[in-house]
Amino acid sequence: MTLPYGIFSTAGSSPRVGVQLGNQILDLDMVGRLAFFDDLEIDLAVFTKPVLNDFMELGKTACQAVRKRLIELLNDPEKPLDGFGDFVFIDAASATLHLPIRIGDYTDFYASEEHASNVGRMFRPQAEPLLPNWKHLPVAYHGRASSIVVSGTPIKRPNGQFLGPDQQPVFGPSRALDFELELGIVIGKPSKLGEPVLVDEAESHIFGLVLFNDWSARDIQRWEYQPLGPFLGKNFVSSISPWVVPLEALDRFRIDGPKQEPTPLPYLQSTGKKHFDIELEVVLKTPGNPQEIVISRTNTCHLYWNAAQMIAHHTVNGCNLNVGDLLATGTISGSSPDSYGSLLELSWNGNRPLTLPNGETRTFLHNGDTVIFRGWAGDDEVSFGEVIGKINA
Amino acid sequence: MTLPYGIFSTAGSSPRVGVQLGNQILDLDMVGRLAFFDDLEIDLAVFTKPVLNDFMELGKTACQAVRKRLIELLNDPEKPLDGFGDFVFIDAASATLHLPIRIGDYTDFYASEEHASNVGRMFRPQAEPLLPNWKHLPVAYHGRASSIVVSGTPIKRPNGQFLGPDQQPVFGPSRALDFELELGIVIGKPSKLGEPVLVDEAESHIFGLVLFNDWSARDIQRWEYQPLGPFLGKNFVSSISPWVVPLEALDRFRIDGPKQEPTPLPYLQSTGKKHFDIELEVVLKTPGNPQEIVISRTNTCHLYWNAAQMIAHHTVNGCNLNVGDLLATGTISGSSPDSYGSLLELSWNGNRPLTLPNGETRTFLHNGDTVIFRGWAGDDEVSFGEVIGKINA
Repeated sequence: MTLPYGIFSTAGSSPRVGVQLGNQILDLDMVGRLAFFDDLEIDLAVFTKPVLNDFMELGKTACQAVRKRLIELLNDPEKPLDGFGDFVFIDAASATLHLPIRIGDYTDFYASEEHASNVGRMFRPQAEPLLPNWKHLPVAYHGRASSIVVSGTPIKRPNGQFLGPDQQPVFGPSRALDFELELGIVIGKPSKLGEPVLVDEAESHIFGLVLFNDWSARDIQRWEYQPLGPFLGKNFVSSISPWVVPLEALDRFRIDGPKQEPTPLPYLQSTGKKHFDIELEVVLKTPGNPQEIVISRTNTCHLYWNAAQMIAHHTVNGCNLNVGDLLATGTISGSSPDSYGSLLELSWNGNRPLTLPNGETRTFLHNGDTVIFRGWAGDDEVSFGEVIGKINA
Repeated sequence: MTLPYGIFSTAGSSPRVGVQLGNQILDLDMVGRLAFFDDLEIDLAVFTKPVLNDFMELGKTACQAVRKRLIELLNDPEKPLDGFGDFVFIDAASATLHLPIRIGDYTDFYASEEHASNVGRMFRPQAEPLLPNWKHLPVAYHGRASSIVVSGTPIKRPNGQFLGPDQQPVFGPSRALDFELELGIVIGKPSKLGEPVLVDEAESHIFGLVLFNDWSARDIQRWEYQPLGPFLGKNFVSSISPWVVPLEALDRFRIDGPKQEPTPLPYLQSTGKKHFDIELEVVLKTPGNPQEIVISRTNTCHLYWNAAQMIAHHTVNGCNLNVGDLLATGTISGSSPDSYGSLLELSWNGNRPLTLPNGETRTFLHNGDTVIFRGWAGDDEVSFGEVIGKINA
């Protein structure tokens, strides 16, 4: 069972903590009031909050105890919760889902070798695709937390400055609006300023994972990003899936990562299986093609750097983590052209438009287009649900 | 009068809002309890909070009314507050100063032409010092909010990865620890996602200004920053001054900025005097030279882009601002070598060591060194106080 955590509300009720069960939401505030958590000795008020931060701050032991209790209750042949009916099991169709986390700092990595190589091949065709530092450290930059929204929020095409045909800067709506298929890592345990997190203890700081769409305006990004990195090309909005999958749900899907050659410095040498086998797909719907078209299929196994390495690197200089911080993997691309995680790559910088079933083509996103990411592990044993966004003018 | 706002506590009392008056702190919680704000119809609880965010959220009209009332009370020949003695006037020497803001997102600009040009001359000696985008938009990147600390917090030399003498990456304490002299801009009014702030309305979003030291590890930065910008070379710690100078205190020190050629795009064309004449100095104390040595003197008039332009640019794509966000100007350098705002520039990337009075030299900071920034306007009519940090191993 995935048992992902999220924040929901129904008509006339306040946002609170729930767990997704197919097309129902288990109301954890109500489960707590019914005394099913009483022996766990946790502050039940955390389930009444409009974000998961307070729950996460209880710590991994408490969060795992709640998950264990939920599994017991749901697997109990006597179905102890069923008698409470729609008191505890909320019809998901009647619920509104909210941004589940009060996000502190957001950091975006660049951890897929295929993605980084594709970008290199497009923008530095004469040079080695990967820059010299890429295999020595998980490259990352800070992103904007304020503009992270929950799945379903409409995506407004950003205005900005970019180079026009005569190579002079012009202002207007981005003409190269793109998605980026990423996984988000939700931090559930803080670290102290000045105290690095060791790579093999890093996963203890992870509460769970979400799907993440780091919407990008490639024309704005291209003009602005030298020398300090992406800014307005990224920070107009990012979308996350409403349900946070606890790391524990993914234990059966741990895998070895790719061989890291050259061997990274000792602080980045992780042991054990710290990569995950999570299937991902990108679906596009357009006004002229309202049925779903899968335009990419990939897997998190393509990440070169794992989450533990990202955390160890992020904190090795003493930078501190807070509960509610979000790390994202960067665009996840596989090796074949149908496994790329952005339109930048799928259309090879606009040079190879995608052709849709009705004959329409796409290099970048049009107004009215809808992008859906889905994720799962093991024939739907674990589901990440989806993150969806429709482009507005 | 500056009347800057900050957060202080004394032995046995909780952090709360105060205003600095020389070597005293005016306790605004107590002033409120004594009914001096009663006719202002504001929620007095904001003065009992451990950050200024709640006060700022009252809005500019309320904050300006408080400032006006304080000026009236302090200028009143009958000295209405004096009778309450150390009930309202706290001896600053007995107080602890706290980080005044719960910082949301932090953005660092790169707005000094001399600084950007110096960096260009050092790192791209064959090319034009400024990159092509620099005069068309205020270049910026996102920084780390979690590691921003208040003046006086010890600065731990960061570990990290950088290139060793044989051009292979090595791990260890940074050998190129630097300061960056900046001004911080505290956002006091939010903007909505998707709604740009017009340049001539942008200052209404500014609560006040602080001194800001964006400590930097140049060796870590140099190895990591391509292609996505600075990360661990910056995010180990940044320091701000404890007292936030309200924008209103600086009205007499408004000046025209440098002529902007080429003329920026319309969304960046600000009218009126939106630059400020604020004097800045950098003081170094070393274990062998414990007296203060002024190693740089400069002025915010050297900024090419003003704060209104920074805000207009930051939000033009719809990126939203929250109360408590911090923008920083980037390193402020003047045109003469004794007015540079970083050791990177003062020692010209380590090639021209500074010689101190006792014969010691510095390229970058040593353990035990203390760096102090001070700022003021008009012969101390407005004082920013100082931001201080001592380097630890």
